[in-house]
Order: sequence, then structure tokens, then C-alpha cells
Amino acid sequence: MRIDVLTLFPKMFEGPMGESIIGKAREKELLSIHVHNFRDYSDNKHQTVDDYPYGGGAGMLLKVQPIYDNLKAIEAQTPDTKKRVILLDPAGKPFNQKMAEEFSKEEQLVFICGHYEGYDERIRTLVTDEVSLGDYVLTGGELGAMVMIDATVRLLPDVLGNQTSAQTDSHSTGLLEHPQYTRPANFKGMEVPFVLTNGNHKLIEEWQLKESLRRTYLRRPDMLEKLTLTKQMTKLLAEVKKEETPKD
Amino acid sequence: MRIDVLTLFPKMFEGPMGESIIGKAREKELLSIHVHNFRDYSDNKHQTVDDYPYGGGAGMLLKVQPIYDNLKAIEAQTPDTKKRVILLDPAGKPFNQKMAEEFSKEEQLVFICGHYEGYDERIRTLVTDEVSLGDYVLTGGELGAMVMIDATVRLLPDVLGNQTSAQTDSHSTGLLEHPQYTRPANFKGMEVPFVLTNGNHKLIEEWQLKESLRRTYLRRPDMLEKLTLTKQMTKLLAEVKKEETPKD
Repeated sequence: MRIDVLTLFPKMFEGPMGESIIGKAREKELLSIHVHNFRDYSDNKHQTVDDYPYGGGAGMLLKVQPIYDNLKAIEAQTPDTKKRVILLDPAGKPFNQKMAEEFSKEEQLVFICGHYEGYDERIRTLVTDEVSLGDYVLTGGELGAMVMIDATVRLLPDVLGNQTSAQTDSHSTGLLEHPQYTRPANFKGMEVPFVLTNGNHKLIEEWQLKESLRRTYLRRPDMLEKLTLTKQMTKLLAEVKKEETPKD
Repeated sequence: MRIDVLTLFPKMFEGPMGESIIGKAREKELLSIHVHNFRDYSDNKHQTVDDYPYGGGAGMLLKVQPIYDNLKAIEAQTPDTKKRVILLDPAGKPFNQKMAEEFSKEEQLVFICGHYEGYDERIRTLVTDEVSLGDYVLTGGELGAMVMIDATVRLLPDVLGNQTSAQTDSHSTGLLEHPQYTRPANFKGMEVPFVLTNGNHKLIEEWQLKESLRRTYLRRPDMLEKLTLTKQMTKLLAEVKKEETPKD
């Protein structure tokens, strides 16, 4: 997969896009990341990339020209590749796991990162997707692009060492993960639940499923509503609800 | 504000936490960020930080001891400061703007970032908050912590140059931003709407409010449901709905 990023802060990408999973995917040549400073494409001598909004208002807007020309240069470098061009914007569609899965099937992704400022509306005509990281305000699209790259790249074949890892996570199964414990069995008086230490795998699996259901029920009932429950899950969830109902 | 981060990948923070708004806030000494590698606190000679889960299962879990001792060291450095200790976890409460506002009022924030692996359940007893960035899976908590730091720090007094900027963003007003345009008035045939160029501020404001409502109605009707509409907004929204209804 090839990823291009348009940003005014290319340095921000240096640390996060060189370490861990993403760093290894790049070493193995499963992934190449090209970070562009779109200021380099500004056609005026002061290299400005922003200007005042028509109709007044606080703040500046990113101009369409530098981004237009940067996208054209990328197109010229990779004319035969189908591109998904993603605008990072608080007004976009909220990013989620399904979108990461979709992105992971593309050949080339192009991320456009604004910073503090809004976009000239015509920039939206140059993209295939407008995506928001979540319902919070950031100073720029850079961290959002990195999050989306991370969520996408870990789904590429051969990127995660253990294929099962990508699938057993929360938000893939639709349930939050159950509590987990590792050694020591007792840490400053805090003990591992007995069921996990006695080697009965049937009991362990049931405990894990029940505690997944409990955590999801208590923290994210909205996730439960979207799930089709098996017979066993229905039974365990009923137990959880009974246990979590305050007694008189 | 003081921010501490516990991570196994301290290098990831170098680019993003040195640039732009956050870089400037640190220069102005409005903010200090301390990144700790919790592997340094492991009490065994191989400096391991993870181990197999009790009861079996794929993957490894982060042990409680290194994180416990790292937190103790931070407490010893800043004994008089009230701390908010935030665990980055997909099973946590989804991060939002309200949480960023809450965080921005704290004296000290401590972020704990896991990576690939789950947490020993007892780590949760050491924290005040468990927070998830959104409904997607990342390889680690680092990018999530950076996003939360960014969203929080921009709300600190004196951090953003223009105080109004922090408040007029989407997700603060409850509406998505209206379309905006800057020069040129015509870019490759794409023109700026006439109303924005003729200087009638009352008409401009009404157009902006109406287009904010339109965008929110089309893209994020869930946001509209949470709003109390003024009389003018109710009227404009009715117009939008009529205009957006397909004609026979």
C-alpha cells in the first residue's frame, strides 16, 4: 500500500510513523508513506497557503490551489493507481473500524490535513471522503491521519505477526474484552480470580464470555444492541443483569 | 499544566509533541510533558513488562508492577499535585469534547499507553479514568494519548492566539461549520456563492447559519437532536428540510 499525506507539519509524522507496527511494515516494504508539505506547491512568491474568508469571520482558510497542485503531482507520480483521497475534517463522517477495514483494501490512500483553519469549500470537490476522528476538536488533521493510518495498516496482510490478534480485539467482536490477569497471582493483596488458575477450560471460557458481556453491559450498552446474541450469551447476560441490579 | 506519559515507545512522541500549538505551549512554559518508558521500572533483570495471561488465550498482557512503580515515581516527584490518571483502552469511555474540557482544568494528567497487548486487570485499580479514542482498534495507546493531549492543551488559557477560535469550532457550537470560501472568486470554474461577496452582513449570517444547519442535518442528524433551536434556526431548518426532500 502507498500512503500520501498532505500537511504543513511534515515533522509531526517522523516519530509515530517510524516506530512499532508501522515502522516494521515500512521496513518489510508492505507500505510506503510519502509526506508532502503542500506549502511547496503554492504558486505565489510568499508561499502563502491561506487567505481571509469571503463574507468575513474569524480565522483564515486554506486555499484550494496548493492542495489542487499537490494532488496533481501525486497523480502524475502514480497515474495507474486508484486513489482514495481523504479530507480530515470535524464535519466529516466519524471514523470507525468498518472504515479502517475499507481503507485497508485500497491500493493508495491520500490524506489531506488542515491545521487550525477551515478549508475553502472547493477543496471538498477534490476528495473521495471527508472523515472526522471523533466528536472533539484538534489543532490539526495530522494526529487524525496518523490514527487512521495506524488502524488501517494493522489490518494489512502480513503486518501483524499473529493474524488472530487483529480479529479478537474489542470492536471487532462487538464486545468489550473481559478482564485479564498475568503473574504474579497476588500483587499487593490483589488476587487473580480462582477460576482462571485451575485449568478448567470450559469454565474459563464461560467466565470470559460472561465478563465480556458484563463489561459491555455496564460500559457500552449501545454496543450490545447491535449484536445478535447466541443462546449461551442470552443466558449469561440475564445472569449479569440480575447480578448488577441493586438489591433492596 | 504538567503531563506525564507512560509508554514503551517514547520516540513516538518526539515529532507531534514538539510542533505547532503544543510546541509553542511548551516554549511558553504553559505546559511541560514528561515521557517515561515504563520498561525502566521493571524489577526483573530481563526488564520484561509483559507475561502470559492466566487461563490461556492469544497474546501477552502488561504486568502491573512496572506501571505501579512508574506511577509511584511520578507521585514522589509531584507529591502535592492532584492527578488525573488516564488509561488508554478500547474498553474505556469514548473520548469527547466534554472530557477534553474537564481535562483542561486539571493540574496534572498522567496517560498510560498500552501497546498491542491487554492490561493486567489490576492496572485499572491504579487509574482515575479509562478512556477510548473511538470505536476502532489501534496498535497502541500512544496516538490516542497524543490526540487527547492536543484536544486538551488547545483549551488551556493563553495557548491559542485567538481566544475566539477555541469556541467557534464545530463540536463546541453543536453544529457543523458552514461552507467557507477564500480567494480566488473563481478557481477553474468553481465559484464563490454570490451572497458572500456582496457585503450584506445580515444576509451572510443567515446564509451561514442555514448552511450549518443543512450540513448538520445531512451528515450528523444525531447532533441536531441534542440542540435547543432558536426561532430563527427552526425556521431555517424547515426550509432546509423542504429543499432537501426529493421532488416527485
